[in-house]
Amino acid sequence: MGAQDKEILKTIKSLSVFASSQVTFLDHLAQQSQVQKLQKAQVLFINEQEAERFYVVKKGWIKIFRETLDGTQAVVDILNEDSIFGETAIFQDDIYPYSAEATELSEVISMPIALLKQEIDDNPKFAFDMLASMARFRRLQDQELEHRTIQNASQRIGCFILRLADQGSDGKTVVNLPYDKTLVASLLGMQPETFSRALGKLKSETGITIKGATITMDDLSNLSNYSCAACSSEFPCKDIQKKSVI
Amino acid sequence: MGAQDKEILKTIKSLSVFASSQVTFLDHLAQQSQVQKLQKAQVLFINEQEAERFYVVKKGWIKIFRETLDGTQAVVDILNEDSIFGETAIFQDDIYPYSAEATELSEVISMPIALLKQEIDDNPKFAFDMLASMARFRRLQDQELEHRTIQNASQRIGCFILRLADQGSDGKTVVNLPYDKTLVASLLGMQPETFSRALGKLKSETGITIKGATITMDDLSNLSNYSCAACSSEFPCKDIQKKSVI
Repeated sequence: MGAQDKEILKTIKSLSVFASSQVTFLDHLAQQSQVQKLQKAQVLFINEQEAERFYVVKKGWIKIFRETLDGTQAVVDILNEDSIFGETAIFQDDIYPYSAEATELSEVISMPIALLKQEIDDNPKFAFDMLASMARFRRLQDQELEHRTIQNASQRIGCFILRLADQGSDGKTVVNLPYDKTLVASLLGMQPETFSRALGKLKSETGITIKGATITMDDLSNLSNYSCAACSSEFPCKDIQKKSVI
Repeated sequence: MGAQDKEILKTIKSLSVFASSQVTFLDHLAQQSQVQKLQKAQVLFINEQEAERFYVVKKGWIKIFRETLDGTQAVVDILNEDSIFGETAIFQDDIYPYSAEATELSEVISMPIALLKQEIDDNPKFAFDMLASMARFRRLQDQELEHRTIQNASQRIGCFILRLADQGSDGKTVVNLPYDKTLVASLLGMQPETFSRALGKLKSETGITIKGATITMDDLSNLSNYSCAACSSEFPCKDIQKKSVI
């Protein structure tokens, strides 16, 4: 096994969705996988294209989106390290239900979707874990819809930052955003100007520091007090951890 | 088997999520199930309560919701006939992730959640179908988030009505809404006044007729032309059929 294969295996093993999978399956999956480097704006696949691979983000940010007939783009998600995508194609006749594009220099691990299907058949525990992942994701989306009504723009940006943070952390915390802020605005359904104003307000209300794409704060308490007041979940928020959520 | 048991079995068999289940399982599930009548505003279970049963709506409307710390209510969904709910508790340590309440005189079939868990273990095809259902539901939520940004209020009400309609229908179509319109407004994240204005505009733009809770239209084309223009899916919309989506 080469150094790159070992690296791939390590990443795959760290994904919680594969927690119940046997070593033989994981080894086989790793052997059939490859690392793929993506340039900024490189499209990985488009909506309704036939699906043979699914992916895990290793580095950078991947934009998940759809386009309306008149060309308006709807950003479904922006994914960072350890996020899995493309896998739900197996439940939709092996057709990708969205497009995927790197928003900056990125790296993904590409894996054959057929092996995932096989593992669902072979391992009921895996199927259950995958269902659990999807249930968590569903709750995350419920929450996002809820926030569109209940939270103000600054609170919603705060929640987005909390989702990216290590919620177990009780000291100084650093969170990296995508370089392209208009992307975050678009995901949150805000105009760029609204986003800028709301981010400014968030800074003054919670004392977070923003430098380029990096956000730094003394701890998470100010941010969680500010955002989670207008939410049906309490902090720490067991549902909003994005890592390994399929 | 009594008449009511037969009725329950018939409903259970008609749910697409059980399409791959053996008759022995379905018989056993039906025997362990019961019909439960609910008064208007009767609460079936509350968020974070321990879960032993899951449900299918037989008649009426069930509101799925959560509450924030300050008591604001967030409507997650309103479900009608053949919709399944409460089942995702099995993926969250047997705790309901939301509250459920009848919004009018309703009837549900109550089923033991343990049997669902067993079937996931025993029947990989069932697990796969359930994953497919959840993937469809996820796409439905993606769409709702997309619409909050791209569609105007009238188009969103139009989409909500289309979701309730039989999309295969090519003639006169009748759709029943919940009696309580403020509930629909709340689900769509609109103030009641915004909802009323937008519904008025939708009527004049598409020629639909509304009488009480019943909407009548010559066919679906006006409504779909109006709403689906600002959407990344095309009509008929394979993803928005709500029946039997878990």
